[in-house]
Amino acid sequence: MQQQSEKTLKIAEKAFDHFTQGLVTGEWEGFLDMLTEDFTFWFPMGKFHGLNEGKDRAREFFEYVSASFSSGLNLTSLDRVTSNETTVVFEFRDEGLLLNQPYKNRVAVSFDIRRDKICGYREYFGSDGKSF
Amino acid sequence: MQQQSEKTLKIAEKAFDHFTQGLVTGEWEGFLDMLTEDFTFWFPMGKFHGLNEGKDRAREFFEYVSASFSSGLNLTSLDRVTSNETTVVFEFRDEGLLLNQPYKNRVAVSFDIRRDKICGYREYFGSDGKSF
Repeated sequence: MQQQSEKTLKIAEKAFDHFTQGLVTGEWEGFLDMLTEDFTFWFPMGKFHGLNEGKDRAREFFEYVSASFSSGLNLTSLDRVTSNETTVVFEFRDEGLLLNQPYKNRVAVSFDIRRDKICGYREYFGSDGKSF
Repeated sequence: MQQQSEKTLKIAEKAFDHFTQGLVTGEWEGFLDMLTEDFTFWFPMGKFHGLNEGKDRAREFFEYVSASFSSGLNLTSLDRVTSNETTVVFEFRDEGLLLNQPYKNRVAVSFDIRRDKICGYREYFGSDGKSF
């Protein structure tokens, strides 16, 4: 059980690295490569609000994110990483320019792992996009 | 390490029971009894937005929550519980009436445990209060 948890954590950390790099650079292939074909994600607001299904939808979403944060969105603090055999939660803060306006938020993303891929995640916002 | 994680999880589950009961009934003493004196919490929005410090501030917050959800706020689904030696994250959905208007949300709360108490938590919203 402990060994499975460690394996899950390693996969999630690798995916999270690609995720935060994607936010900075707009390059999402590394992250998308780690998603299962039946990947789903939940997002808190806007045109991707609620449940989103499939890898194509994910690609569309991340392109939209990077178009909105055209100069990149930077992780400024990783507050907590909490995990078990199947799920890893990252709590972090990020900061950037959203459509050229100052943006900062506290965020929790909860990744579900199946074998060596991410099969889903749920995103939650801890602030209003204006301050921590 | 495994043993400490199990102990932490048990304490957090007990606190979470009091927390969800508080949301339903407006009775918060059971939850407040489990907080350290230097307890802090982060909340995503409104008059308690950001970092809140101290047990008195917590009491004020939970009274405010129960006044806003005067007929109670019900946990309708516990989606994930993820934990390590010091932190336990609960992902859940809740539903009720906020100032008499239909309210539903997806929520993540991340409890930090010190000995047999909760020394802090961070709350995150996964939706807009109107739908999951």
